[in-house]
Amino acid sequence: MIFSSQPMKKKYDSPDSLRSVGWTGARKMLLTSPGQPFRLQNGATLSEVEVEYEVYGDLHLAQDNVILIAHALSGDAHVAGWDSQTRVNGRIWRQSRPGWWDAVVGPGKAIDTERFCVICANVLGSCYGSTGPGSINPDSGKPYGLRFPSVSVADWVEMQRQLLDRLGIEHLYAVCGGSLGGQQALEWALRYPKRIGKCIVLASGPKLPAQGLGFNMVARHAIMHDKDFAGGDYYEGEPPRRGLEAARMLGHITYLSGKGMDKKFGRTRLAQDQGSGLFGTEFEVESYLRHQSRSFVQRFDANSYLYITRAMDRYDAAEAWGGGDLVRACRRITAEMLVVSFSSDWLYPPDECRNFVDAMLKAKLPVTYVELESNSGHDAFLVDTEPVGRLLRAFLLAPSRERKVAKH
Amino acid sequence: MIFSSQPMKKKYDSPDSLRSVGWTGARKMLLTSPGQPFRLQNGATLSEVEVEYEVYGDLHLAQDNVILIAHALSGDAHVAGWDSQTRVNGRIWRQSRPGWWDAVVGPGKAIDTERFCVICANVLGSCYGSTGPGSINPDSGKPYGLRFPSVSVADWVEMQRQLLDRLGIEHLYAVCGGSLGGQQALEWALRYPKRIGKCIVLASGPKLPAQGLGFNMVARHAIMHDKDFAGGDYYEGEPPRRGLEAARMLGHITYLSGKGMDKKFGRTRLAQDQGSGLFGTEFEVESYLRHQSRSFVQRFDANSYLYITRAMDRYDAAEAWGGGDLVRACRRITAEMLVVSFSSDWLYPPDECRNFVDAMLKAKLPVTYVELESNSGHDAFLVDTEPVGRLLRAFLLAPSRERKVAKH
Repeated sequence: MIFSSQPMKKKYDSPDSLRSVGWTGARKMLLTSPGQPFRLQNGATLSEVEVEYEVYGDLHLAQDNVILIAHALSGDAHVAGWDSQTRVNGRIWRQSRPGWWDAVVGPGKAIDTERFCVICANVLGSCYGSTGPGSINPDSGKPYGLRFPSVSVADWVEMQRQLLDRLGIEHLYAVCGGSLGGQQALEWALRYPKRIGKCIVLASGPKLPAQGLGFNMVARHAIMHDKDFAGGDYYEGEPPRRGLEAARMLGHITYLSGKGMDKKFGRTRLAQDQGSGLFGTEFEVESYLRHQSRSFVQRFDANSYLYITRAMDRYDAAEAWGGGDLVRACRRITAEMLVVSFSSDWLYPPDECRNFVDAMLKAKLPVTYVELESNSGHDAFLVDTEPVGRLLRAFLLAPSRERKVAKH
Repeated sequence: MIFSSQPMKKKYDSPDSLRSVGWTGARKMLLTSPGQPFRLQNGATLSEVEVEYEVYGDLHLAQDNVILIAHALSGDAHVAGWDSQTRVNGRIWRQSRPGWWDAVVGPGKAIDTERFCVICANVLGSCYGSTGPGSINPDSGKPYGLRFPSVSVADWVEMQRQLLDRLGIEHLYAVCGGSLGGQQALEWALRYPKRIGKCIVLASGPKLPAQGLGFNMVARHAIMHDKDFAGGDYYEGEPPRRGLEAARMLGHITYLSGKGMDKKFGRTRLAQDQGSGLFGTEFEVESYLRHQSRSFVQRFDANSYLYITRAMDRYDAAEAWGGGDLVRACRRITAEMLVVSFSSDWLYPPDECRNFVDAMLKAKLPVTYVELESNSGHDAFLVDTEPVGRLLRAFLLAPSRERKVAKH
């Protein structure tokens, strides 16, 4: 198998050909057909649903080496390697870009694509090729905007399952994700316990704590009150840039840690005032956040931000699977679990993760829990790739333990 | 001396009469006169500056019992008791309201107004009676808006000093403040070391860390990109409500702690959806933040928010007094220092406060440092009034230690 860090876009026409694929590049699959809509958890339907996905590495004939990776809020299917181009709501955003987890996924890397066949799909409601609020509603010929139905973490797992079914893949060696991706990994373990062997949840947990709910609300408030928001129907005019910038800057702060920001920026001032006087850009941290946010509005759809954060808010594994009782919910799980938290993550703080792990222990699950010391905050799962990679490699390669779970 | 929790507004015409005052109610003093403008640290001048202040308790003839309390971002001069009315930029906001630190300041309370004469003044740039961007610029007959000059923590201390000079008060028994008020207290200890005996810095420090700079920037971004901001000249139209709401919600989250929010709100849902569907108000924490922010825009001026957060950003005691060296700066201090940090405060985290205390110890200062365990976050200095009160009382009543500081 050849895997190159240079753009390598191949098109394969039949799912069978996946068996000899190195990297597929971005592919799309239509999950619906006339009379066969995509059914959401809340009862709504979408008559046309496409999913964009990428596949890395060869699929064993025994189908025993598939790892599904789930992306976080602003991620896409492009998890590794160099893309030839990235499209946002169909429009080319930029050429050639490394995958969002390229340091972890690839040949010889922690999630080794010489051994595993890695699949990653863009979530429903996003703007990177899968159907979302920026997609054309076939009933009206116009973008959905806020007429797009509410989506949930469970819908994303259903979408991934349908994709895998069509690719002829029944069993997942592992499912893995960080943050919102970790919620998807957990939902897989709860919803399809028999279809997965190992489950990796990084910087995530069974529910978003109140502080995260608050931050997400402020982000949506900023977007929805932007002068250009137009009730979500901004696709033919100016997008709500300023609101999405505020959301991204805010999000970015919550992904870092106080100590990490002190180390990276401190209170260093810019060489010269780059803004408009008193309230312009004066400190390096301001310049960084401004730059990040301006880049983000080029590559992300504000409506997708609304839908995906709401799905993140609403995810509650205990409520969905245990009538509010997390231990009861966890009794559904049969996968081997790895949970990794990061000391400076305050979106999913270690205390929360320990509660989750305690519930799994009470449910007598074989769970591995690691709390990594890090100043990288919530983003640690993306940036502390060396320690994270070591954990992933060890967990993935360890022989499966015999299950000794009491049946309830 | 009589102190009542009922409104008790008295007017006294001469500073001398302060000697027999219980509580003055809100008073104003004009600090400028023709040809005698208020001179700011950056060289700018204001031809008319008024300061609004309140005084509680009798001033001893020996003037040995004055405590100056400095307020935080959105505070005012009304620190204790029940006001008869509160005005925002001159407009009546509401009748009868308890002081922002009423649990701590008053007769028999931790800062005992039967023993001490407490003075609190609204900062320059605010909207509660002291001159600010919402005040009329005498040169144009219109509100200043963003033509108001940049103000600093040092300017606030200068304003307080001028007020005290005119009241005939040379010596402060103590100066005390939390958050931005703590920066003012520290600046007093550095700028006028001989005029103060004790200095109390709560949930604050010699500089705002990078994370706080980031949050303040997002808040200002939200205000300045509100469709009604009009470059700050919104006084005759709609104020930038939505932007100020975003700023306040964001601020509010940063004043609490994750654990505190989990305890207070968790993920409790409202009995019925109170908003407009998917992106409306669904969780209690959302309802709380929304309510807080809507109430805030009634009582605060968005331009003041810009000016005051920028002053908070720019305050840097080491830079101003030690050429970047905090130990050198601290050598100026002669006051006895009390520094209190709170375990869950992430605007001025305990680590930062310890650095500050270390610098003072290196400067051989007699400093008392207490780190209080609390889930109340940055707001702990306002809400954990029982433990904070005990510390303040003990520190204020302890006999002054003889100074054994080596002279440099």
